[in-house]
Amino acid sequence: MGRIFKARTPVEEAGQVFLEHISPLREAEEVALEACAGRVLADEIVAGRNVPHYRRSAMDGYAVRASDTFGASPASPVLLQLSDRVEDGSCTWVHTGAAVPEEADAVLMVEDTAVVGNLVEVRAQVYPNRNVGPVGEDIKAGDPVFEVGHLLRPCDASVLASLGLNRVRVFRKPVVAVIPTGDELISREKAGEVPPPGKVLETNGLMAALYVEKWGGISRCTGIVPDDPRKIREAVEANLDADMILLSGGTSVGKRDHAPQVVEGLGNLLVHGVGLIPGKPTALGVIGEVPVVCLPGYPVAGLVAMYFFVRPGLRKRGSIPEPPEIPLRRQLASKISSKIGYVNFVRVVFEGDLVRPLMGAGAGVLSSVAKADGFVLVPENVEGYEAGEEVDVFLIE
Amino acid sequence: MGRIFKARTPVEEAGQVFLEHISPLREAEEVALEACAGRVLADEIVAGRNVPHYRRSAMDGYAVRASDTFGASPASPVLLQLSDRVEDGSCTWVHTGAAVPEEADAVLMVEDTAVVGNLVEVRAQVYPNRNVGPVGEDIKAGDPVFEVGHLLRPCDASVLASLGLNRVRVFRKPVVAVIPTGDELISREKAGEVPPPGKVLETNGLMAALYVEKWGGISRCTGIVPDDPRKIREAVEANLDADMILLSGGTSVGKRDHAPQVVEGLGNLLVHGVGLIPGKPTALGVIGEVPVVCLPGYPVAGLVAMYFFVRPGLRKRGSIPEPPEIPLRRQLASKISSKIGYVNFVRVVFEGDLVRPLMGAGAGVLSSVAKADGFVLVPENVEGYEAGEEVDVFLIE
Repeated sequence: MGRIFKARTPVEEAGQVFLEHISPLREAEEVALEACAGRVLADEIVAGRNVPHYRRSAMDGYAVRASDTFGASPASPVLLQLSDRVEDGSCTWVHTGAAVPEEADAVLMVEDTAVVGNLVEVRAQVYPNRNVGPVGEDIKAGDPVFEVGHLLRPCDASVLASLGLNRVRVFRKPVVAVIPTGDELISREKAGEVPPPGKVLETNGLMAALYVEKWGGISRCTGIVPDDPRKIREAVEANLDADMILLSGGTSVGKRDHAPQVVEGLGNLLVHGVGLIPGKPTALGVIGEVPVVCLPGYPVAGLVAMYFFVRPGLRKRGSIPEPPEIPLRRQLASKISSKIGYVNFVRVVFEGDLVRPLMGAGAGVLSSVAKADGFVLVPENVEGYEAGEEVDVFLIE
Repeated sequence: MGRIFKARTPVEEAGQVFLEHISPLREAEEVALEACAGRVLADEIVAGRNVPHYRRSAMDGYAVRASDTFGASPASPVLLQLSDRVEDGSCTWVHTGAAVPEEADAVLMVEDTAVVGNLVEVRAQVYPNRNVGPVGEDIKAGDPVFEVGHLLRPCDASVLASLGLNRVRVFRKPVVAVIPTGDELISREKAGEVPPPGKVLETNGLMAALYVEKWGGISRCTGIVPDDPRKIREAVEANLDADMILLSGGTSVGKRDHAPQVVEGLGNLLVHGVGLIPGKPTALGVIGEVPVVCLPGYPVAGLVAMYFFVRPGLRKRGSIPEPPEIPLRRQLASKISSKIGYVNFVRVVFEGDLVRPLMGAGAGVLSSVAKADGFVLVPENVEGYEAGEEVDVFLIE
C-alpha cells in the first residue's frame, strides 16, 4: 500500500524504451534443411555453384547444330540422322530439363519435326542457343541468394537444397524463463482436484510459455513462486542465464505486489504502469542483458502485455523479422467506449460481415478471450467508436 | 507422346471436385495442454467446474456483513472489529481474487475505510453482494466452452487449464506421403558433389514436406522413384496407409510422365490439367479414401499446386479450420500480362509501398520464389493489370 506506479507510460513509448534496452543475441547454430522452416539465417547465402550446372534443354525435342537447320521449313524440310551423338548432319533426342550434348548448340522443339525411321525431318530452322538454358541461368555461382536475417520458408529450403546445401546456420532461439508468482496459485499437477477457496490453478504461465514457443522462442517454465520478495528475487537470479524473463503476477501496487521492486533491485526498472486497458500494471525492465516483463496476473491483462511487449521483445532478441500485420477491415455491430489516455484492447467476435465487441468483459474473465476471434485497438486519444464504424481487426493468434 | 491432358479444368472447379472426394479423418488422440496449441479439438468442451469455484473478492478491502454498514458515511462512520472471522460487528481483510468468507455478504473497498488499531472505520455503506463475484461468474459448470473443430490457441490452453484439464483430445494430424519421381533426380545425401550433367538434386519433395508440416500434417518422405510406371505404382501402393499422397514430377504428357496414369490405374483420376500458370500439368485423384496430388516437377509449378490443392485438401482431411486469408492491397510498380483462361500466379516483391511483379520468371526458376515476398492472382477472365492498379497481394508462407 502507499506504493504507486512509477508513472503511467504511454504504450508506444513503453514499447520503444523496452526495445532500446534489448540487444539481439545473434548466436548461431546449425540445423538440417528439414528443420529450417521458420528459422532465421545467421549467414548470408552466396551460391556455391551454378543452377543449372549444365546446359539445359528448355523443350522436349532434338539437340542439333543450328547451322544444320538453316533454311528448313515445312515446305522444304531438312533431314538429320537420329543418333546418340550430335555431329554434322545428326541429332539426338533430349527432353525438357536434360543436358544438351556438348556438340549441339540448339534444341529444335518436337512439334517442328517428324520422325521417319532413323531420320528426323526438320521443318523449322533454329538459331544458335535456341531452347538452350545456359549454365547458371537460375542462379550463378557467387550470386547472393539470401541475406542474414532472412526468415526461411519451405520454398527457400528447396533453393538452399538446389545449391548443394544440407545444413544451414541460423540464429538460436531465445530461451525465455516463465516464472509464475502468487500465494493463490496451485500447480497444474493437482488439476484433478478442485482447489480450496481462494486458490486457483496456475494457467498464465502455461499461456505465456505457449505464446513464447509460437513466436519463435524456447520456454523454460519454473515452479510457482510465492508472493515473497526474497523468493521472487531468488527465482529471477536463478534464471539470469535465460535470454528473457517473464514474471507473471504481483505487478500492481498492492501489499502482495513485489515483482517490479525485485526487478528494480537487481537491474533497471524502465516502466511500471502503462496506458493500456487491460494491462495497466505491466512493468518492463532489464537486468544486465536480460529483458524482463512483469505480466499482470489478470489473465486478459497478461495476454495483452504478451502481445504488446513480449512479442516484439522476443523478435528483437532473436532477430526474428516481424511479418507485416494485416488487419481486417470490419464494421462494428455495436459501439465501443474507451477511456482517454489509454489504448484499449477490445475483444471482438465475428458476426457475419460485422464484428461485435465483447464489452464489459473484465480483465479477469479469460473466457472472454476464448470467445473472441480478434481484437480492436482504440488509440489513447479516441473515446470510442460508433456502431457501423469501420475498424481494423487483428486476429488473436 | 500422343497422350493429352484429360481436359483443362478451371482452378475453382478442380479444387471443388478434389475436396468433394476428400473425407475428414476425425480420428482423435490425446495431447497434454503444453502441446495443444495449433491442434484441433475432437471433443466439445463443457465446463466440468465453476470458474471461479468460490465467491471471489473483486477488490482489495474488507469482507463484511452489508447490514453492519448501513448508514455509514464519511461524516458518520461505523466502527467494525478487525478479525480473522466475519461476525456481527467484525470484518476481515481480503485482497482482490481472494475468497470472501462464508459469513460475509459484501466487500468494502479499502479506499472507503481507515484502520485505527484493531478497528476499521467504515465510511461508506455497501449493499449485499457488492464487490463479490459469484461462483461461476466467468464460466459455469455445464457451460459449453469450445466446439468440436476449434483450433486451439495459447490463450485457449489456459482456459482449458482453468477448468482443471491437463490433457485434451484433438484430431490426429494427417500423414502425407511425399514421393519424388524422376530419372534425373539425385538424393540429397549426395548434396556435397555437383551431380553429372542432366541430373539434379531432389528439392521439390523437401519443399512439399515442409509445407505439409507447416499446414498441420505429418510428412513421410520416401526415396526417389524412377520414371517407371511399375515402380511408381509400387511406391503408391506401399503408401496407401497414409492419409494423402503427393507424387512430385512426371505429371505432364511427355514420354516420361506416368504419375497421372498410375493414379488412374489404381483409383480415380479426377483432374489432369488445370487452368493455372504455372501449375498446368497438376493432376488430382483419389485412391480409395486417399487423396492424391500429382505435383508438377517444375519447382514453382509444384509450389503453386501445393497452395491451390494440397493446403485445402490437407485442411479438409485433418478438419483444420481455414484461417481468414487477408490480402494486402498494393499498387503495382509495373504491369502484369496474363493469359485468358488461366489463373496466373504472379510472384511479386515489395518496393516501398508498391509491389513489383517478377515477370518472365519461368516455372523452372525457383530462385524467383526465393526473391518473392508474395503473389498476385490474376483471374481467368482478366488479361492483366496496368502499372498503378491496386491488387490483392498474398504473402508466401
